[in-house]
Amino acid sequence: MKILIANRGEIALRVLRAAHELNIGTVAVYSMADKDALHVKLADEAYCIGKSFSRDSYLNMENILSVAVLAQVNYIHPGYGFLSESPLFRRLCRECNIGFIGPHERTMELMGDKVMAKEIAKKAGIPVVPGSDGEVATEEEALRIARTIGYPLLVKASSGGGGKGIRIVEREEELKGAFTASKNEALANFGSDGVYLEKYLKNPRHIEFQILRDEFGNAVHLGERDCSLQRRKQKVVEESPSPTLPADLRQRMGEAAVKCADASDYLGAGTVEFLLVSDGSFYFMEMNTRIQVEHPVTEMVTGVDLVKEQILIALGQELSMKDKPLELRGHALECRINAEDPANNFAPSPGNISFLHFPSGNGIRVDSACYSGADIVPFYDSMVAKIIVHGKDRAEAISKMKSALYELTIQGIKTNQEYQEEIISSDFFRDGDYHTLTLDHMRG
Amino acid sequence: MKILIANRGEIALRVLRAAHELNIGTVAVYSMADKDALHVKLADEAYCIGKSFSRDSYLNMENILSVAVLAQVNYIHPGYGFLSESPLFRRLCRECNIGFIGPHERTMELMGDKVMAKEIAKKAGIPVVPGSDGEVATEEEALRIARTIGYPLLVKASSGGGGKGIRIVEREEELKGAFTASKNEALANFGSDGVYLEKYLKNPRHIEFQILRDEFGNAVHLGERDCSLQRRKQKVVEESPSPTLPADLRQRMGEAAVKCADASDYLGAGTVEFLLVSDGSFYFMEMNTRIQVEHPVTEMVTGVDLVKEQILIALGQELSMKDKPLELRGHALECRINAEDPANNFAPSPGNISFLHFPSGNGIRVDSACYSGADIVPFYDSMVAKIIVHGKDRAEAISKMKSALYELTIQGIKTNQEYQEEIISSDFFRDGDYHTLTLDHMRG
Repeated sequence: MKILIANRGEIALRVLRAAHELNIGTVAVYSMADKDALHVKLADEAYCIGKSFSRDSYLNMENILSVAVLAQVNYIHPGYGFLSESPLFRRLCRECNIGFIGPHERTMELMGDKVMAKEIAKKAGIPVVPGSDGEVATEEEALRIARTIGYPLLVKASSGGGGKGIRIVEREEELKGAFTASKNEALANFGSDGVYLEKYLKNPRHIEFQILRDEFGNAVHLGERDCSLQRRKQKVVEESPSPTLPADLRQRMGEAAVKCADASDYLGAGTVEFLLVSDGSFYFMEMNTRIQVEHPVTEMVTGVDLVKEQILIALGQELSMKDKPLELRGHALECRINAEDPANNFAPSPGNISFLHFPSGNGIRVDSACYSGADIVPFYDSMVAKIIVHGKDRAEAISKMKSALYELTIQGIKTNQEYQEEIISSDFFRDGDYHTLTLDHMRG
Repeated sequence: MKILIANRGEIALRVLRAAHELNIGTVAVYSMADKDALHVKLADEAYCIGKSFSRDSYLNMENILSVAVLAQVNYIHPGYGFLSESPLFRRLCRECNIGFIGPHERTMELMGDKVMAKEIAKKAGIPVVPGSDGEVATEEEALRIARTIGYPLLVKASSGGGGKGIRIVEREEELKGAFTASKNEALANFGSDGVYLEKYLKNPRHIEFQILRDEFGNAVHLGERDCSLQRRKQKVVEESPSPTLPADLRQRMGEAAVKCADASDYLGAGTVEFLLVSDGSFYFMEMNTRIQVEHPVTEMVTGVDLVKEQILIALGQELSMKDKPLELRGHALECRINAEDPANNFAPSPGNISFLHFPSGNGIRVDSACYSGADIVPFYDSMVAKIIVHGKDRAEAISKMKSALYELTIQGIKTNQEYQEEIISSDFFRDGDYHTLTLDHMRG
């Protein structure tokens, strides 16, 4: 048995370790920039698949599949990012007679399309953010639909972006003016005046549920992760359980996540993302058909090894925990440490790590592929390490994270370490009082 | 609140981290050889206490207490080794008005004396290895006592050592000859012919129980550690729970350990060591009045932070788990990685660590004070790191340890890494079929 890991960095190591523990052989692939990477050193075999840019290497399906065929691997694990959500790559694997550790091609296609994914959720009885079905042509139609959605709502340009062509409408009297203004702004900016309506969610939390489903149709959820702390839609801190989710809501949202998995004939590990507002209403946002960066917080509180489960499900095994009640133990936090410069608008800060010391000890886990002397190359994402802690309760987890961030020592590059310390030490974090825009409001 | 840590290496870091998490200030002390040590860098304050040899620094009570008084610390944590079991140091701390994180002076005195410790255990109704009370003068007395002990038994020189003056006696007919031979050998080797009798335990296991007791008399045990894998009486691999201890025996031995703690008016974290033979008989061996090297395996399966508990007990708090039933989760292993050369009779191998990479990830913990570029100095013990793993069961823990040892990379010095891999991969370890002499038999 042999697995090719079509990825790099910490997730490549994560998969390597799971394979080692299962006594499965490993094949690494790497770009020229990654020739000294740890995943290359620790795999049983390693092959260069191209130049440093992703499109030449980690996105190069032909080269990866050539290695897979020549090295006679049984399965490919795609990690996250890169080819992990490509139905085409999934199909090419099948055509090469190589297993894929992830969901079926059809599931990836459906869930990869946001409109279709919402349709599936809706049909399964899961609430989605209310809005018009597509574009709205006239003021009269807008008024009629707005009454079913309720106020406040958003008028959004179909081809919009960067905040342009968006209007918040608090009351019906404002709708006509906003509708026209949004259409004009859309036309001026994007050359198209199509607009649609969507319910405005105030200060929502990003709550996602980890699910596992095997080929026999057994499906479970493993509790939630609260990933509301985001900087420009990039997750920064994640935790499990959420500091504010009541048990009955956890149960209802978890059941909705499992329904989503069933409705899409899901296979393996996936995540159903919801937006949650303060009155307890929640809305399906999207489903991620891969392992996620923040999966360790779920592992810490459930004791389940998600990557091993992914592999075992792909091998055709039944879920090991299918009849066990979900038992959450303690509280886990994750801080993403990135090679970036907070003083310079978080610009990437690649370079050589001249000295590295990771925190360790009781309840501390660091997932990283870095080492003293390693280069952070500029071609890929800037994540250097995930600092993960587990405490008997949230207060202990926070004190552990503070201690771990204090101990973390990375020399030679700039990182967001102090920014993370600021967040973890903040009153809003201590109180669990945050939402998806909190970090964007924290600094101009 | 401020704690001085009168130790070095990984245990100094372990205490530092616990103090940080409790928001307690830290004072490090160090020898000249340790000026670049991590515990010096990570403490709030650090003071040199003398030259490199232990007697000049980490055993130098006056210098340590001078720092403690001048830095106005409230407590001293002694770690393990060095001054941790010195009733004199404990008394001097009190005389300097500085708290000591450990048991009372009287407890240390009693439990530090092996004869008195056995007396206390005996009085508390705990079995001790049967034998003569002190020396045996004549053959006739030996015969009479031997009948109460039973065969096989050992005749041992009172002042013996190095295996000299010891005879195994299988049957009564052999006793007279062995008695005389042992006396003669003792006289020839040690200048004294005093001998005593002790029951011979065949292939015993070393099973120790972690206990906690507060000043209100609340006492709990936290399950056992099986430390039978020893090389010349030095522990090499430890695990919790023991692979072979039945639940009823765990309960009886655990109760005996708690009795021991009560009988010695124990305060803080301690360990009661037993020898266990295959028929289920167990015997009190000794009590260690400090935190132990192998404490993390207990932390992994119980979720209790033993060093935090030590500190909180010293601060006068009640045991946090006093009314909770002991709940063991999964299985934990620890391998001690030492700077030593197995090919050269395990001689110490100090030097510069030119490159270091520790395993990490799900269920992996490494307690170490080393880093890439650190020097292993020749003045202290040779332990470089403790690799600790936690799995949902013993089989998973073993596969995790194999994977972790595979990943561990220490360059520049010789270590026992391969020796540990050999043990963890052995049939006897997989089967849990080992005792205190297994490793000494493994290699000539």
